[in-house]
Amino acid sequence: MIVPIILSGGSGSRLWPLSRETYPKQFLPLVDQYTMLQSTALRIAGLADVTAPLVVCNEEHRFMVAEQLRAVGVQPAAVILEPVGRNTAPAVAVAALHAQNQGADPILLILPADHVIADVEGFRAAVRRVAPHAEAGRLITFGIIPTAPETGYGYIEIAENATPVANPGGRSLFRVASFREKPKPEDAAKYIASGRFLWNSGMFFWRLSSFQNEFGKANPVMAETLEDLTDALMAEDQARAAKIFDALPNISIDYALMEKATHVMVVPGNFIWDDVGAWDALYRTFPTDNKGNIRVGDPVLIDCTDSIIYNAPGQKKMAVGVAGLKDMVVVVNDDAVLVIPKDRAQDVRKIVIALRDRGATQL
Amino acid sequence: MIVPIILSGGSGSRLWPLSRETYPKQFLPLVDQYTMLQSTALRIAGLADVTAPLVVCNEEHRFMVAEQLRAVGVQPAAVILEPVGRNTAPAVAVAALHAQNQGADPILLILPADHVIADVEGFRAAVRRVAPHAEAGRLITFGIIPTAPETGYGYIEIAENATPVANPGGRSLFRVASFREKPKPEDAAKYIASGRFLWNSGMFFWRLSSFQNEFGKANPVMAETLEDLTDALMAEDQARAAKIFDALPNISIDYALMEKATHVMVVPGNFIWDDVGAWDALYRTFPTDNKGNIRVGDPVLIDCTDSIIYNAPGQKKMAVGVAGLKDMVVVVNDDAVLVIPKDRAQDVRKIVIALRDRGATQL
Repeated sequence: MIVPIILSGGSGSRLWPLSRETYPKQFLPLVDQYTMLQSTALRIAGLADVTAPLVVCNEEHRFMVAEQLRAVGVQPAAVILEPVGRNTAPAVAVAALHAQNQGADPILLILPADHVIADVEGFRAAVRRVAPHAEAGRLITFGIIPTAPETGYGYIEIAENATPVANPGGRSLFRVASFREKPKPEDAAKYIASGRFLWNSGMFFWRLSSFQNEFGKANPVMAETLEDLTDALMAEDQARAAKIFDALPNISIDYALMEKATHVMVVPGNFIWDDVGAWDALYRTFPTDNKGNIRVGDPVLIDCTDSIIYNAPGQKKMAVGVAGLKDMVVVVNDDAVLVIPKDRAQDVRKIVIALRDRGATQL
Repeated sequence: MIVPIILSGGSGSRLWPLSRETYPKQFLPLVDQYTMLQSTALRIAGLADVTAPLVVCNEEHRFMVAEQLRAVGVQPAAVILEPVGRNTAPAVAVAALHAQNQGADPILLILPADHVIADVEGFRAAVRRVAPHAEAGRLITFGIIPTAPETGYGYIEIAENATPVANPGGRSLFRVASFREKPKPEDAAKYIASGRFLWNSGMFFWRLSSFQNEFGKANPVMAETLEDLTDALMAEDQARAAKIFDALPNISIDYALMEKATHVMVVPGNFIWDDVGAWDALYRTFPTDNKGNIRVGDPVLIDCTDSIIYNAPGQKKMAVGVAGLKDMVVVVNDDAVLVIPKDRAQDVRKIVIALRDRGATQL
């Protein structure tokens, strides 16, 4: 039995002005009519032998999560509220504790809520292929076969002399040699050239008991704290739970577990995947016109090339007209406008910080 | 006695999205708290021996003109309504006919309503200096001493062997050799190098009788039509007046009179002047920050140079954030956004046309 855990706690300021503090990207219908959270839930729903999902989200998003899932007919097994964001390690560990109630030692499928996977069937096939290996006790992470030397992703290195583990679909699981942070361009190029690197998708698959054993070994202090947290939650002592949660370290599951654990395997997925980490990422997801432009919301483009002009559907339709742009990103919302070269898409954070400093309300 | 004639009939689509079909640029507070029409009226009000202005505008702007002038305490002598825009020649000629009622052969000071003159006292001094020459029967046009080889202006050529006409202020009136349309860059450079060219400001100054004599000689057919028009207006036969007006040729006063008349003189004005014909013109009017950017409406700029970021005050304040821009124009309004390189500012027309074609309401 598979228990999906949807991590919906991200903040995503790099997609401002669409993403907001109170409305991060997983709650936006960024690429189609479904929000990314809804797409994540629907993606799982098609798997066999799967329970209702556990959803981890920030306390202030509880009603949005409930409403968005209801709208697509998904009833979560539980919505676990984080009083504060504490990165993925605490979220995954707390969700795992909840999963104890879902059945005897289920397999946990951990999925961030803010990823785009165009090839849903490819994703499901990958899950089915590696399920027996998760059942057998391995910690499995999904790697994406890279299509370009992206510097915005972390990478997973496959062991040089790894013995491929055959799986029913004819593909292989590989032993992981290392996890690498977002690389410099020259390192990314080396990774791609080596053929031994995959993008780190942040999706995981493992048996509850395997996770708890490995997590406890790698993080004895945190594991103990989490038991206190579970006690507090069972006792419905929210104040104490919040206090314990607040004291948890702000670290990723990659760092807290994957880099330390043994038996870590990666399955190479060749489905189209994207974490839509910044505006230029739309280039990997949206179709372009014959001049390489992405047009959303019917903007007027005169002599533009390789640009993203995103006129978001809002309460009031804005008229957007641009001319002579090359490699630019223009995003227009009801109450905010972003203009930035594609290769500066990461600077959206700086803009958001500057707007916050001056007390802007459009965050 | 001076009778000012304010030409407020322009449409100004090149300043979209601020200027609109129903709200051309002369009605906008583009550079300070006054609209350009208001600034024009206030500029005249400081002259001695001046009557209330005659204002020529499009029929649909009658209430806006009345309200904007009322707000600055100016009561026009008359507001002459054009049923259709017919360029400056018919507007000036019709206004001249109205001016017959303002006194015995007054001097007419003709001013477009959509010009920026930062140095109001310099302008008034120029008017005072040349008034005796207008009284003496000369047709006077205001030339602006050019500060750069602009290609967006028409030019006035001073006769090579012109005898300067001394005037009380120590400056000179010059005989005009020719009027030149907006030049190519290489021609503009030659004009500036010669020292004999001034920008054509479109402001004129002449005695009513001198104008009527010269205009009648240069345009006998139109002059006759205008007499019919006057009869229709006197008889308050609006339908007939509209029909006659509609049949008038769409030509400028430069073309209809100045290029053909004798006794045409130009007074070189060295006051800062601009017709704000396109967004890049703001560069000649607004102060810049230490990186050459013009900022209006408190946008966030990260690493931008030589750009214009204009966040118009509207019913709803938009948040505008830009980064990494060079030589760009970004204009944001309540309901529309323009992004264009500075050197493509003329392409705003194309955007407006495209928006019109698709039935946009933000024109």
